[in-house]
Amino acid sequence: MPLSPEQLREVDDLRAETTPTLRATAPGMEQHLYTPVQVLDHGFVRVVDYMGDDAAITQAARVSYGRGTKSVSNDEGLIRYLMRHWHSTPFEMCEIKLHVKLPVFVARQWIRHRTANVNEYSARYSILDREFYIPAPDALAAQSVVNNQGRGEALQGEEAERVLRYLRDDAMRAYDHYEEMISTEGQQGLARELARMNLPANIYTQWYWKTDLHNLLHFLRLRADAHAQYEIRVYAEAIAGMVKDWVPFAYKAFEDYRMGGATLSAAAIDCVKRMIAGEEVTQENSGMSKGEWREFQGVIEG
Amino acid sequence: MPLSPEQLREVDDLRAETTPTLRATAPGMEQHLYTPVQVLDHGFVRVVDYMGDDAAITQAARVSYGRGTKSVSNDEGLIRYLMRHWHSTPFEMCEIKLHVKLPVFVARQWIRHRTANVNEYSARYSILDREFYIPAPDALAAQSVVNNQGRGEALQGEEAERVLRYLRDDAMRAYDHYEEMISTEGQQGLARELARMNLPANIYTQWYWKTDLHNLLHFLRLRADAHAQYEIRVYAEAIAGMVKDWVPFAYKAFEDYRMGGATLSAAAIDCVKRMIAGEEVTQENSGMSKGEWREFQGVIEG
Amino acid sequence: MPLSPEQLREVDDLRAETTPTLRATAPGMEQHLYTPVQVLDHGFVRVVDYMGDDAAITQAARVSYGRGTKSVSNDEGLIRYLMRHWHSTPFEMCEIKLHVKLPVFVARQWIRHRTANVNEYSARYSILDREFYIPAPDALAAQSVVNNQGRGEALQGEEAERVLRYLRDDAMRAYDHYEEMISTEGQQGLARELARMNLPANIYTQWYWKTDLHNLLHFLRLRADAHAQYEIRVYAEAIAGMVKDWVPFAYKAFEDYRMGGATLSAAAIDCVKRMIAGEEVTQENSGMSKGEWREFQGVIEG
Amino acid sequence: MPLSPEQLREVDDLRAETTPTLRATAPGMEQHLYTPVQVLDHGFVRVVDYMGDDAAITQAARVSYGRGTKSVSNDEGLIRYLMRHWHSTPFEMCEIKLHVKLPVFVARQWIRHRTANVNEYSARYSILDREFYIPAPDALAAQSVVNNQGRGEALQGEEAERVLRYLRDDAMRAYDHYEEMISTEGQQGLARELARMNLPANIYTQWYWKTDLHNLLHFLRLRADAHAQYEIRVYAEAIAGMVKDWVPFAYKAFEDYRMGGATLSAAAIDCVKRMIAGEEVTQENSGMSKGEWREFQGVIEG
Repeated sequence: MPLSPEQLREVDDLRAETTPTLRATAPGMEQHLYTPVQVLDHGFVRVVDYMGDDAAITQAARVSYGRGTKSVSNDEGLIRYLMRHWHSTPFEMCEIKLHVKLPVFVARQWIRHRTANVNEYSARYSILDREFYIPAPDALAAQSVVNNQGRGEALQGEEAERVLRYLRDDAMRAYDHYEEMISTEGQQGLARELARMNLPANIYTQWYWKTDLHNLLHFLRLRADAHAQYEIRVYAEAIAGMVKDWVPFAYKAFEDYRMGGATLSAAAIDCVKRMIAGEEVTQENSGMSKGEWREFQGVIEG
Repeated sequence: MPLSPEQLREVDDLRAETTPTLRATAPGMEQHLYTPVQVLDHGFVRVVDYMGDDAAITQAARVSYGRGTKSVSNDEGLIRYLMRHWHSTPFEMCEIKLHVKLPVFVARQWIRHRTANVNEYSARYSILDREFYIPAPDALAAQSVVNNQGRGEALQGEEAERVLRYLRDDAMRAYDHYEEMISTEGQQGLARELARMNLPANIYTQWYWKTDLHNLLHFLRLRADAHAQYEIRVYAEAIAGMVKDWVPFAYKAFEDYRMGGATLSAAAIDCVKRMIAGEEVTQENSGMSKGEWREFQGVIEG
Repeated sequence: MPLSPEQLREVDDLRAETTPTLRATAPGMEQHLYTPVQVLDHGFVRVVDYMGDDAAITQAARVSYGRGTKSVSNDEGLIRYLMRHWHSTPFEMCEIKLHVKLPVFVARQWIRHRTANVNEYSARYSILDREFYIPAPDALAAQSVVNNQGRGEALQGEEAERVLRYLRDDAMRAYDHYEEMISTEGQQGLARELARMNLPANIYTQWYWKTDLHNLLHFLRLRADAHAQYEIRVYAEAIAGMVKDWVPFAYKAFEDYRMGGATLSAAAIDCVKRMIAGEEVTQENSGMSKGEWREFQGVIEG
Repeated sequence: MPLSPEQLREVDDLRAETTPTLRATAPGMEQHLYTPVQVLDHGFVRVVDYMGDDAAITQAARVSYGRGTKSVSNDEGLIRYLMRHWHSTPFEMCEIKLHVKLPVFVARQWIRHRTANVNEYSARYSILDREFYIPAPDALAAQSVVNNQGRGEALQGEEAERVLRYLRDDAMRAYDHYEEMISTEGQQGLARELARMNLPANIYTQWYWKTDLHNLLHFLRLRADAHAQYEIRVYAEAIAGMVKDWVPFAYKAFEDYRMGGATLSAAAIDCVKRMIAGEEVTQENSGMSKGEWREFQGVIEG
């Protein structure tokens, strides 16, 4: 259970009382506010604040394009138009603040998205908790034999058991020594900022992470993708579920034009034209490298 | 009057109905929401949305510094501590969205603050209104004779009248020609994206501008400063009045440590020490250039 | 002529002497250094510094992907792979600094690209020159009758003449009054920061603009595109010509995967599959709106 | 030794041949290019490229301030003026690219500086080396008893030995298991992206890190400061030594106005005035909290 009874009570308290506001309010998001969605074994993600809704996107677009937006008269049509034509600034008018608990190695990938505001729990000032990510059996994947960037089948039998034992035992031992090193019982006690270096990358940390909708969708496109590492993808998917309820028009457009879409190269478009005209196109006469051709096949046959 | 009766009615409508929300709400900011504060002759600034309050700053800091924040037990003390030690990330947890109407030459300065989201009215798509900034008599300043960056006394008599006449007449003529060029009455009509080039920099534009509190305070430090151009300073001052009601603790700390504070160089600190010890310090024996010495005098005598 | 004889002499001087360096050097870019390429009637763009070359991109990628990059053994192949899979960080390892002279209304579009460093000539401190953009006859386009965002045919006959006369005369008069207002001959002289507001948006300004290759390519994708306003597109095209000589592999990949490519939505990919299978697909049975269908036709028939 | 003989040979090769360039060249930086400066036990920092020099800063400032810069006629004076008045954009005109090898817990602090370009060695694609940071005896500090954020005295005797033994043994065991888990000898072999989670935060990683001079100086102000964690401070100091040779005027101004300077609050300035006037000022009558007063004492007595 990622949250303590005390924390769950706090969530209940926060959800118990509403305040009247003049601001734009997204009913779908109010349903999610504060409540953690469990991710992995000890992690979670929860919305702690948000700004704007679908109407905030079109409101900004109408300031920008003025009478020019009249040709797209309804909100959903305008949002789809903006998404299709990569008009990103109206989507920046919505903002979200998340509280996330996640393993350090996931945090290290996540932080590479620079256009965001972050406050992370500091192991320089404070003591980390004894919580480590240990993969579930079906997430304990072998290295892919096809490429360097992916996973293969789940490990089996003894090998799986040994890996799990290493991960668990090494984490526990590292944490025992961490606690012992910082202890001031009968000794000076090592500085926290130093002792933390003994802790492995599957220890959990937490942060407040705030970003705008445009950058959030970019994050989701990369991290909810099939090529993303499973352990960050599950966070992205949990967030996607919230965004869907927050800004349903924007999310639908995102699914149609980004997640479900694909970018074709000049050579690939040429092949599509030839194929529609009935020509037999092969990798050899496609003008594409083997890698490109394989990816192209994935798009038009997948 | 910057707002039309129709727009004022819209503001009244928006302010008439509240919605219950579970989010953090800042009562001082609810008072300001949607209502435009007039700035210059036709401009305004108004808050259209906000996220967070003083407590959102300390909440983020407590995630970061964990038990380390216990030593500063109350919210105001913690906020002052964060401001004093340049811990900027907790202040990034608050966000504001403004709707601003402003002359183009002011917009050109403002946009240099890059860490913000902007949707500006597009003169490519739409037709600009016939509204120009004409300075009030006491803002019609002469070039400073002391330095290249400032203003001197207000212009007097005939000179003032001539300047005002030029500004008014040139703007009206430019707008007449703008309208005539884009007209499709009995002619093709010039593209809007071209016709706009005839309009002077005192024409009004408008935008939605969204930024976080840390970057907003940085903007205020530079633009509410005595050295900022008057025409942007009045916008900064109008915004400062809102921020004061939104996050009173953060704003007070900002006033004490940033607006009312000063940065002293190594040489200046050395002079202060010598002066406290009773030594007679002059520019000649200060180790400072004339410019530095004059600025230093401004701090300790001003 | 955009450059004075004095400035041209300065360029010659800068190009006359080389210094030995240990840094990566791009021969194609050395050819361009300092020399202005004329754009529009009085504008130019010229490279004043650069960092990195094609090899700097793969060098960074090899740090990132380590042994994982071995599968793509040659530099060009790796660069194409990175571009195709939206791995943007290696392209950020190259940097360019441009000196640009451009009309203010173009500068206002350009500055919206926020991830760049800019130093613009300040009309607060200094006096602007009497130089205005006056479109050539074939660039004097009518408003498009098809949509709000484009241009139609060039204006003809008397209408064209009248427009050119307005643009020229209004600019000259505005500048005469600007000079008269700031003059201190027998009067106080208006502050420069105020007088500039009388100048129309076709006056030329100039700046130093520095950005990384990833952000530059994003700028080129949007601004060298057929939908961009002609007056910024010609700058983008001039820059593209330099980038092609600077990082030939990266530029080729950019042309193939970005400029010549297209993003298809989920619905569009579905249509492509059906069309390849021989099915008759129309807008009605495509699942796309009319706008989307028209754009889709543009891709597969264009 | 942080670099292998092979790598040192590579550095020698890179330093052996110069290429003529038309670009601005900083002789002081050419001396540093490619050569690693050792930091901590296995880390290093080295410059792999740079753009600009002191003259590039004033060149940009002169574009911005035009005739306004004439009043400060020499380059050093202008740079000092710009630094003193927080004119940051001219400093953004210089760029540096570093190759850094550093422990993961240092990398986690460093990456929080968002305005930079980064390519880090990926443990998803590649196998990390068996190299861990083990503090030297005098860096093995106790937790400060004064505050939560600092270090006290170095650990002594048995306690120190035990800590070092834990750090060494846990790292070795974690790495043994890492190797064993990813091995494909007689087993499937765990995916690298999973196996890395067993490795502690003192393992070394490396990256290319590129930023502009303004943001680099901001990094140095925070990280070369006495309050920064020792393990990142030594990197900042190594970089500072390079910057000093690269842009000597800018670095001198930075030392005088930033590193050696201090920001005083409104209350502190008031106290300074009273003290110069001969008044006895104590914390009680200062208007400052105890914490503020202690810091103020540090400035005027330190």
